[in-house]
Amino acid sequence: MQQARVLVTGAGGFIGRWSVPGLLASGFAVHAVLAPHSAPPVPAALAGAALHRADLLDAAAAGDLIRQVRPSHLLHFAWIAIPGIYRQSEDNYRWLAASRTLLEAFLRAGGARAVIAGSSAEYAAGAGLCVERQSALADDGAAAVTPYAQCKLALYRDLLAASRSAGLSAAWGRIFLQFGPAEHPDRLVPAVIRRLLLNQQAPCTHGRQVRSFLHCADVGAAFAALLASDLQGAVNIGSDRSITVAGLAAMIAAQIGRPELLRLGALPAPAAEPAVLVPDVRRLRGELGWTPRFDLAGGLADTIAWWRRELRC
Amino acid sequence: MQQARVLVTGAGGFIGRWSVPGLLASGFAVHAVLAPHSAPPVPAALAGAALHRADLLDAAAAGDLIRQVRPSHLLHFAWIAIPGIYRQSEDNYRWLAASRTLLEAFLRAGGARAVIAGSSAEYAAGAGLCVERQSALADDGAAAVTPYAQCKLALYRDLLAASRSAGLSAAWGRIFLQFGPAEHPDRLVPAVIRRLLLNQQAPCTHGRQVRSFLHCADVGAAFAALLASDLQGAVNIGSDRSITVAGLAAMIAAQIGRPELLRLGALPAPAAEPAVLVPDVRRLRGELGWTPRFDLAGGLADTIAWWRRELRC
Repeated sequence: MQQARVLVTGAGGFIGRWSVPGLLASGFAVHAVLAPHSAPPVPAALAGAALHRADLLDAAAAGDLIRQVRPSHLLHFAWIAIPGIYRQSEDNYRWLAASRTLLEAFLRAGGARAVIAGSSAEYAAGAGLCVERQSALADDGAAAVTPYAQCKLALYRDLLAASRSAGLSAAWGRIFLQFGPAEHPDRLVPAVIRRLLLNQQAPCTHGRQVRSFLHCADVGAAFAALLASDLQGAVNIGSDRSITVAGLAAMIAAQIGRPELLRLGALPAPAAEPAVLVPDVRRLRGELGWTPRFDLAGGLADTIAWWRRELRC
Repeated sequence: MQQARVLVTGAGGFIGRWSVPGLLASGFAVHAVLAPHSAPPVPAALAGAALHRADLLDAAAAGDLIRQVRPSHLLHFAWIAIPGIYRQSEDNYRWLAASRTLLEAFLRAGGARAVIAGSSAEYAAGAGLCVERQSALADDGAAAVTPYAQCKLALYRDLLAASRSAGLSAAWGRIFLQFGPAEHPDRLVPAVIRRLLLNQQAPCTHGRQVRSFLHCADVGAAFAALLASDLQGAVNIGSDRSITVAGLAAMIAAQIGRPELLRLGALPAPAAEPAVLVPDVRRLRGELGWTPRFDLAGGLADTIAWWRRELRC
């Protein structure tokens, strides 16, 4: 039997790179796609993968890539992901169109299984504990929906339709909050870590938001396991441990030893932010049988160590 | 101020006709669209409405109708509805395309508010008590979805998108089970009534299905009230009284006086039938403030009387 061949898009990204070790361990030939403009060096996690550079927003380039690699499997992470920008950006519509083109080319080339990265943003505000195929989705109602959630949900339904009509084996991983090395410095966890390591006050919101955080290496590993399985449909990718943002900040501050520098309430909380947004992980843990490598304390220690090296402090 | 003008499609139908008296009572100028092939006589409930005959599956005819009437309001019932056929029919895709054409023409002509008839079939099997904007929908998952549910949900999302982006005021009425005069004779209630009035055994399924039944005149009146309101999004149209199918059949048999002719369990129940399918009616009763005219006993008495006249017995 021919070796299964997976095309991983967004493979240079914060999550995508961490799927590669698990895919290689499962026996896949891994073809990793990097954005043409991505800065060197290539992430170390991609060692062992064949590398491709392609602009997937260019339909011709996407078609060429599929024809060249002829993947049996597709793991699609590439999308706009710039903090503070991605929710409202018009680029969401471009990535939706590009993803449809990619999926169609993959199907035409005889692709057997696809897994695509979705987001907890697809759940309706107020869903609280989010249960796949049960909780309300963000576009079911008269309330405003962000271009990000709208486009991800449109692609999700296309994937389900391809599964029903074209016999594609398909799953959709909904990522909750993640953290870890090389995260964008403006995001919550690196922002607090950097401030505290530099002996500066770390302003936070009130911190009462209940969330679930998973280390990026575990998020990537969960996607690798999902692709290697035959689980169908939406699967939440997150931790089963819920914690308040204040609790998370306190864990970071305790590890660094500077709890007195935390400033809860110094930043305004976004107006429309849900009080509780956590995943039901029965599909991930029970049906897929996957368990994370890092607990929260260990994941934070790994991230703090990475920033100590980065900041040389 | 100019009188509000409503275009009612499917106005000759079992439900559509009963919206017209309520619309006229609310002060609308009513333009009722009948299928070109609909058999005479015109339903008495349409008295007071301007009548149009048009094949809405013909995009040009739909455009002409909108240009001619220039409606401020749209109440869209027309769709394939043949018992035993409509769920799987390819005509669902034709009605979806025709409905999109109609909605776009209505928006271009400056339409202000649209209400479209949806169905309890849009909820996922196993939803049980169906709550708008909370319960899972039929196309959220890897399970098969009927063309009927798929096309109704696609139109529902188009209506929501038009509401968000074009400023259209819009609601979507999800009809649960209905009954009443002139219902197709193969449907549950008329089938049992006819058999019993003709002194024949009335075969039923096991009858343990929990459902909610509303008289067609009340379903139509609820749509008229919904159109006259500014309620947005999905609204269940059904009764707050849940009853088993066996209980309903027993009520019919008791009114006719032939309980000994009921044969529960004589018919096989459909394989994939949900045990419980009932609407949460808090939006209909609480937010819209609408109440039905018929209780279940009164609605059944009205329907039995209609069949006595029809069958002359």
